[in-house]
Amino acid sequence: METHTFFLHLVIILITARVFAEIAVRLCAPPVIGELFAGIIIGPSLLGWVEPSNIIKLLAEIGIILLLFKVGLETDIKRLADSGKKSILVAVTGFSLPLILGFSISFWLFSIPLLESLFIGGTLTATSIGITVRVLKDLKLSDSHEGNIVLGAAVLDDILGVMLLALLYEFSIGGGINWLNAGKVLVFIIAFFALAPILAKLMSLIIRRFQVISGISGLIPTMIVSLVLFFAWLAHIIGAPELLGGFAAGLALSRRFFLPLGVNLHSDARFAKNIHRQMRPIISLFTPIFFVLIGLSIDLHAIDWSSSYIWGFSLALFGIAVISKMAGAFFINESRGSRYLIGISMIPRGEVGLIFAELGKLSGFFNNETHASLIIVIILTTILPPFAMKWLQKTYSHTFNNS
Amino acid sequence: METHTFFLHLVIILITARVFAEIAVRLCAPPVIGELFAGIIIGPSLLGWVEPSNIIKLLAEIGIILLLFKVGLETDIKRLADSGKKSILVAVTGFSLPLILGFSISFWLFSIPLLESLFIGGTLTATSIGITVRVLKDLKLSDSHEGNIVLGAAVLDDILGVMLLALLYEFSIGGGINWLNAGKVLVFIIAFFALAPILAKLMSLIIRRFQVISGISGLIPTMIVSLVLFFAWLAHIIGAPELLGGFAAGLALSRRFFLPLGVNLHSDARFAKNIHRQMRPIISLFTPIFFVLIGLSIDLHAIDWSSSYIWGFSLALFGIAVISKMAGAFFINESRGSRYLIGISMIPRGEVGLIFAELGKLSGFFNNETHASLIIVIILTTILPPFAMKWLQKTYSHTFNNS
Repeated sequence: METHTFFLHLVIILITARVFAEIAVRLCAPPVIGELFAGIIIGPSLLGWVEPSNIIKLLAEIGIILLLFKVGLETDIKRLADSGKKSILVAVTGFSLPLILGFSISFWLFSIPLLESLFIGGTLTATSIGITVRVLKDLKLSDSHEGNIVLGAAVLDDILGVMLLALLYEFSIGGGINWLNAGKVLVFIIAFFALAPILAKLMSLIIRRFQVISGISGLIPTMIVSLVLFFAWLAHIIGAPELLGGFAAGLALSRRFFLPLGVNLHSDARFAKNIHRQMRPIISLFTPIFFVLIGLSIDLHAIDWSSSYIWGFSLALFGIAVISKMAGAFFINESRGSRYLIGISMIPRGEVGLIFAELGKLSGFFNNETHASLIIVIILTTILPPFAMKWLQKTYSHTFNNS
Repeated sequence: METHTFFLHLVIILITARVFAEIAVRLCAPPVIGELFAGIIIGPSLLGWVEPSNIIKLLAEIGIILLLFKVGLETDIKRLADSGKKSILVAVTGFSLPLILGFSISFWLFSIPLLESLFIGGTLTATSIGITVRVLKDLKLSDSHEGNIVLGAAVLDDILGVMLLALLYEFSIGGGINWLNAGKVLVFIIAFFALAPILAKLMSLIIRRFQVISGISGLIPTMIVSLVLFFAWLAHIIGAPELLGGFAAGLALSRRFFLPLGVNLHSDARFAKNIHRQMRPIISLFTPIFFVLIGLSIDLHAIDWSSSYIWGFSLALFGIAVISKMAGAFFINESRGSRYLIGISMIPRGEVGLIFAELGKLSGFFNNETHASLIIVIILTTILPPFAMKWLQKTYSHTFNNS
């Protein structure tokens, strides 16, 4: 693609994302819905103006990593620790139930081969943390008790989903599972989340020292983006999804974060605020690209709408996708409104689901119909929950622990 | 290239650029020198850690366009108009003399074929506006009388250079010059610079209107980056270099800019300041990538250092490159210090020169020795002038009309 064509595509993405986000807000839907629709409209499904090229994908990836960084930066680690057990319960249920039910219905009810059924179950496992977080943020609930549970659960969920993906992928090409490697990846991830905050805190000390003596402007954006991308690279190297690196970097620079090492490494409020103010324009610029990309990746023409198998299979999978994700919220001790909010917040599938669907197709496991059904389920789980969350927020807002 | 590898490359570029820029400042050199050296060090010449991939080139292009936007935004159009005649004189002399002298010495003294000699002359024509502007900014002279003359001259120079490139390129592939097309491109560029400010001003009115009623943050960075990239695309479409689009967009949104249409379209100071504040982190993030890329594009190993032809030819071309660019400044009525500053500011070649050299090589006109000589001249003209400018600023600073 030539440079000027790329510029035009980027302009179309940024402007349509903005226009449809504004329309969505006026129709009482979260902006992310508008951005998804912008992608569907300008993508291969309708106008075909923009293709999801590699560079757009890279910018979208930076967008989602930076969003996760922002989420991490705003996360209150103490509160996340308080909701830790509940998050784990929601995550483990929301991971295992879709896998088991998705596999079972495919294998026994629709007589789909073993490996294909496992891939279908896997596609249903991972909550799209990006979409959920954005919707929670738009509803001003990302800082709430429920938001923290969902955030923690979605992060764990994503790790489990990506590890399952790595496992299934190895299984599909190697003809057998290497349990030793799988164990190694798990140990690496735990070590990463334990060490990342210390590394980031030391780097923030370096930034603050140099900010005083530097004669050139722009130290904060350059160093913070470098830190975030370095953590993303590190996350990939140890076998975790890259966006977890962004989350870890944000968490470590968070204002409310504290280390057991003592107050020496405790960053002050003004520094965190300064980081926030300088990073906001960069984050708002990149983040919508990710949500437009999800819309761009959906080609409505690729689906054979006349097949009744598609509709039946899609409906069955959608039911499982909704029920199995909501179930976890009903195992924890919360009010009815909070349970619904947590359960529904866990429903959206997105990036990891799409990666599963893509890999399943590329590996030759999914035929067109199965692939189409999974894409329908991903679209529905992505598009419908924000409306339900919006409605819940209006109905139960007095019961949510917002602070 | 895989995503995580790209992230690591970007981190290496951002961090080394910053480190070497800080070192350069401590050695009393402008930061841009440090960033160029960072590119040479991490690139194929030395460590070979980072290759100038397509995506890095795109980000660098965005960086230089955004820098030109910033320059335009800070440009006082009235003062530029005051220095207009002088800019034109400096530009026309600084364009035609290097072309004529570069051609003559190649054709008659070194017996190089006609078209090859024309390409060599062309390579010497265009001042690297990016490097010059950055150095002037670092010396706090970009807002001075001399800075405005250089800026105007370098912009005109770049247009002339790129038009010559288009002409020579057509000449090289078509076997003859199409004068009709050349005239069309010229008319388009004039129309573009006349209409761009009106378009940008109308868009700024839309931004300001929506900023009040929008419920979603991040309107300014999204819309401004879109506007800048759209103008870059437009500039390309009409046959001008893309960075001129960025410059036109910045100029049009400038606080001091006024239209003959009247005060209705006159934007207020707070809005311009708001744009500036929100765009600064994005601009500081992208700009260094461009200067690192220049360093990355230079492969010191590609040069056969034992050839005496290289040294003689390089020395002759370097002499011409310096003298022919400085000559223009001595045709205008300025103090001695100002003449030296303007003349030396026009010397750096960079992006357009490298594009000429690249195209000349790709078209088969340049053998390795000629190509190497041109690259040496581009490196020397890029690296030496900032030191001279720094020295001049110290020696003659009392005579420069800085405000």
